[in-house]
Amino acid sequence: MTGFEQLWAELADVGREPSTGGYRRFAWTGVDAALREWFVAAARQRGLDVVTDRAGNLWAWWGDPDAAVTDGRPGLVLGSHLDSVPDGGAYDGPLGVVSAFAALDALRAAGFEPRRPVGVACFGDEEGARFGIACGGSRILTGDLDADRARALTDADGISMAEAMRTAGYDPGQLGPDDEALRRVGTFVELHVEQGRGLVAAHDGAGAAVGVASSIWPHGRWRLDLCGRADHAGTTRLVDRDDPMLALATAVQTARSAAERHDAVATIGKLRVEPGGVNAIPSAVTAWLDARGPVPDDVRAVVADVGTAAGVTPAEESWSPPMHFDEPLRDRLATLLAGPGGTAAPVLATGAGHDAGILSAAGIPTAMLFVRNPTGVSHSPAEHAETDDCLAGVAALARVVEELA
Amino acid sequence: MTGFEQLWAELADVGREPSTGGYRRFAWTGVDAALREWFVAAARQRGLDVVTDRAGNLWAWWGDPDAAVTDGRPGLVLGSHLDSVPDGGAYDGPLGVVSAFAALDALRAAGFEPRRPVGVACFGDEEGARFGIACGGSRILTGDLDADRARALTDADGISMAEAMRTAGYDPGQLGPDDEALRRVGTFVELHVEQGRGLVAAHDGAGAAVGVASSIWPHGRWRLDLCGRADHAGTTRLVDRDDPMLALATAVQTARSAAERHDAVATIGKLRVEPGGVNAIPSAVTAWLDARGPVPDDVRAVVADVGTAAGVTPAEESWSPPMHFDEPLRDRLATLLAGPGGTAAPVLATGAGHDAGILSAAGIPTAMLFVRNPTGVSHSPAEHAETDDCLAGVAALARVVEELA
Repeated sequence: MTGFEQLWAELADVGREPSTGGYRRFAWTGVDAALREWFVAAARQRGLDVVTDRAGNLWAWWGDPDAAVTDGRPGLVLGSHLDSVPDGGAYDGPLGVVSAFAALDALRAAGFEPRRPVGVACFGDEEGARFGIACGGSRILTGDLDADRARALTDADGISMAEAMRTAGYDPGQLGPDDEALRRVGTFVELHVEQGRGLVAAHDGAGAAVGVASSIWPHGRWRLDLCGRADHAGTTRLVDRDDPMLALATAVQTARSAAERHDAVATIGKLRVEPGGVNAIPSAVTAWLDARGPVPDDVRAVVADVGTAAGVTPAEESWSPPMHFDEPLRDRLATLLAGPGGTAAPVLATGAGHDAGILSAAGIPTAMLFVRNPTGVSHSPAEHAETDDCLAGVAALARVVEELA
Repeated sequence: MTGFEQLWAELADVGREPSTGGYRRFAWTGVDAALREWFVAAARQRGLDVVTDRAGNLWAWWGDPDAAVTDGRPGLVLGSHLDSVPDGGAYDGPLGVVSAFAALDALRAAGFEPRRPVGVACFGDEEGARFGIACGGSRILTGDLDADRARALTDADGISMAEAMRTAGYDPGQLGPDDEALRRVGTFVELHVEQGRGLVAAHDGAGAAVGVASSIWPHGRWRLDLCGRADHAGTTRLVDRDDPMLALATAVQTARSAAERHDAVATIGKLRVEPGGVNAIPSAVTAWLDARGPVPDDVRAVVADVGTAAGVTPAEESWSPPMHFDEPLRDRLATLLAGPGGTAAPVLATGAGHDAGILSAAGIPTAMLFVRNPTGVSHSPAEHAETDDCLAGVAALARVVEELA
């Protein structure tokens, strides 16, 4: 068993739901605490210093990151996140953290001595599964998400992020942007499982185990508040009804047709129905719309079409403009990771948001590596990557560290 | 304040959700226990004997119901239920129980001595809000709902009815049909708030405070298990998706159009979305379909149309055939409750199921009285009846007891 496989096995059961085989790793829960403990233990076993920033993200450092800032050689950081969507797969997030540790292990075993500090980051609440805002940890870190707004966000049970943090033993009062933590990051490289089949199709179908990200599509989340009037399902004539479920049906169909029309994707994956009785016409249906695409105006057109069709103004809960990763860094890594024939690694755009996108938008030179996903399936228990491809990802990360540190 | 109003005020805050003003009174919860305690206390204050039957329904008796069975003069029972749909109104159920106590108070104050025992019943779990089957208490009592099936029903948190009963201090092992309890009931009369505007429109629009039920429409509940494949909302191409939300949209629209076509009503008021993440295409959507109408075949045609359109076979969770109340009793009460001009009380069908329908189907002569609902709204915090109309209901019930006991 490789070091990678050993680390991977340690996480296999944490937050796994036996009935579905998927993971339920949500921010500031007991499962989240177990994942953080795992990260700290893995760092300490390697003699790395662990720091928690003001946004609750964890950083494990090889070398003194503050001395390096003074010297003008701020660190190279690898890493990703450990939380999941509801019933998510094993790879989305953890692959980047485990691969980072495994890459450092390989480099140290080979006697490599970095010229600048190397860190492994574990960002909190990347999926936003509990409080509704994706990349919460990195957004609070950079100031993109206001700390007061973050503290007041509530989960499905009405528990605020502030309460949840307090329960987990963290002081929500210290939440906020952390320039000191950011200054330590000279370069950030996030390895992530691909969430489509771009690498399968790369090199004219020959495929590639590892690729480099070019950009992240603009994307956002909107809330549709569809209102009606609660009434008895058996005694209210059809003509007397004001049933918001019909507006939901229109919204779902329009999300699909408008996305087709505007060359984007749109999804309604989360609903709340009030009061939710079998024999009661709903008083309200709340639907969340996720929309993304290559062109910002097209994405916004989809959202506008859905709002018009459903008769509401969609409430924007988050919006991420298109994000192009650092081009020189991207090209350098694509060349560095060229295949045996000298062909540069594939360079791909993605529809998924990542902490790397938030750090890049904050002005940090940032790159992403993708590891091949044979089916393209993600956010599902069926998400998968072959072990050989994961090991190729570890080797690629190690070469990136050799090159950049 | 009348005795009715005093009793009514005692219930006003039990299980009320401050944020909506609606009631959340679900079977075998702490709120349910408080309602049962209230019933027992009200009965004891009046010197009535309280018996719990094997289905968990409560009976308060004035006179010895068992001696009366031996004498061939089994009792006259009034009553209804105290539980609610999620965010239900104050009247659906409690009006019948409170009015029964108030009617007995009025009769006893006037020195009335019944020739046979008079009871007040409080049926459990009428709405089926927690375990999904309406009229659970009366269906278990008559054997219409098998006790093993009832014990195994689960709520949204996966708690079985057996577990919930045990937590509430009841022995689920004793659950089952109770012939002894049923034999005591010579006649059952349930007073209920009307759930439409039939009494507002009665007598050519002049209206009537109280009416008599003719029949209950055939009605049932079906579960639609819509399956898809969980996947990432940002990276999965539209053509690669298997999104069950689209089938839901079709089901909702077909429920409405098929109900229009077949002269019935159909409602989807409860949903479950798995996994329920904003950025995940759902793996499954479960929808519950409530359908009713005057003609059984028409109701079944609506359900079949919805199933065909959504590509599934609807799973029948309950079905109640059309139920015609005892005709001689119905006519006798309509005449008894005639207005000042001698016009018989209005006689109305209803689309709502009731415990009275279950008892009637079990062969007990049964009648229902309706109290005017000015808006027709029910299963909503906005459900209402004027106090004068409620007091007219109490007076009508008292006259029914004088006539039948």
